[in-house]
Amino acid sequence: MKNFKLVIEYDGTNYYGWQRQKFGRTVQGEIERALRRMTLREITVIGSGRTDAGVHALGQTANFTCDTGLSPEVFLKGLNSLLPRDIVIKSCLSVSMTFHARFDAKSKAYRYHILNHNLPIAIGRQYVWQIRRPLDTRAMVRACRYFEGVHDFKAFEGSGSPRAHTVRHVTGCRLSVGQGGNLTLDIEADGFLRFMVRNIVGTLVDIGMGKLTPQSIPEIFKSGDRRLASATAPAQGLFLMSVTYP
Amino acid sequence: MKNFKLVIEYDGTNYYGWQRQKFGRTVQGEIERALRRMTLREITVIGSGRTDAGVHALGQTANFTCDTGLSPEVFLKGLNSLLPRDIVIKSCLSVSMTFHARFDAKSKAYRYHILNHNLPIAIGRQYVWQIRRPLDTRAMVRACRYFEGVHDFKAFEGSGSPRAHTVRHVTGCRLSVGQGGNLTLDIEADGFLRFMVRNIVGTLVDIGMGKLTPQSIPEIFKSGDRRLASATAPAQGLFLMSVTYP
Repeated sequence: MKNFKLVIEYDGTNYYGWQRQKFGRTVQGEIERALRRMTLREITVIGSGRTDAGVHALGQTANFTCDTGLSPEVFLKGLNSLLPRDIVIKSCLSVSMTFHARFDAKSKAYRYHILNHNLPIAIGRQYVWQIRRPLDTRAMVRACRYFEGVHDFKAFEGSGSPRAHTVRHVTGCRLSVGQGGNLTLDIEADGFLRFMVRNIVGTLVDIGMGKLTPQSIPEIFKSGDRRLASATAPAQGLFLMSVTYP
Repeated sequence: MKNFKLVIEYDGTNYYGWQRQKFGRTVQGEIERALRRMTLREITVIGSGRTDAGVHALGQTANFTCDTGLSPEVFLKGLNSLLPRDIVIKSCLSVSMTFHARFDAKSKAYRYHILNHNLPIAIGRQYVWQIRRPLDTRAMVRACRYFEGVHDFKAFEGSGSPRAHTVRHVTGCRLSVGQGGNLTLDIEADGFLRFMVRNIVGTLVDIGMGKLTPQSIPEIFKSGDRRLASATAPAQGLFLMSVTYP
């Protein structure tokens, strides 16, 4: 038996997220289908975590075990030739049998792209959330630091998937203001609740619109009330950048 | 009667090019359909020129005449609300009745994106030509200057659409070598023959692969023989950036 670690890039536009489902194409489902064609076996691919419908990844990480003579290089090339063009295996490594992509994940980094621009765009529209009203980016930049540190993110958790505990350690949260209204949020934590990044982004945008102040974030944390935080930002601006292991 | 000038951005991925066709979605066809819904009239939109199937634009320019009380601002907003999301009107201006987007075009600028990277990509794959074998980018950069100036581009013209004359003045041809294997060709001329940019790109890539030398370009010009230049580069890397008028 061998254990293989995969790093995966995907364009989530045409997928119902990472996790295999009975109906609808998913990234896990496509990779498992390609593995079945290569090995003639049913193989379960364990992702570092789910990504929701429409979310992209540049560094999703997964592992699968298989009794095979095939090398990691053969899996890399074989999978990439069998997978649709919007899913790419960036690396395949042979790892210890104890490696588990979900349980061993130490931290994850996400990026969210906002385009603050008056006119709609056609090129690259599937990779950003466009906000046409001008945003107070300085307030948004200031607000970011309130998310850093250890907090109870209950108010930023999507409903319908409560976790045992909702305390997470955000080790970095930074908004870069680029040219032409390109805003990039980079956020890293030991783990994320469902919709957590997108709810943080929604809240930052409300701060940029003057509907909330940076100082209201501690209040929202304290309340633990999802209704006090803002609406969930759309999926298409979100990228899972990397997963870190010890 | 009024004359309106449009600047248009589009993602060409899902279109059979600019020009209206009996079957298949085209950019011109979609804009004319939106204009019909706004004005209840049959309006012909005159583009600065065709773009081929799969080619993108950040600054295609067009005009249409119409007997209307609607203002340019109303057309801008109305068209953008009626058009599919992969076509965007960036500006709409009222212009002199004599303005003609094709006949008056003084020069055009195109950009072509090459990604020279060993692994396939998923994000943004619809906007680049990926070459996985390493390219000699220095030879490609050197080759660019051979395309500048006044030349007979017959050997770089796509077959099946001969023009009255094939001499064009290329005022700029420059390859920028960015990080991570991102190569960007910017080329500007008083006019372009069909497939001219993509045939130049194909030739540059052959030079990058060592199949041709920069010095062979003058020979190819002299021959006027399409078979001596390289295969046509794929459409998806090509962007019509801007059209200049006097």
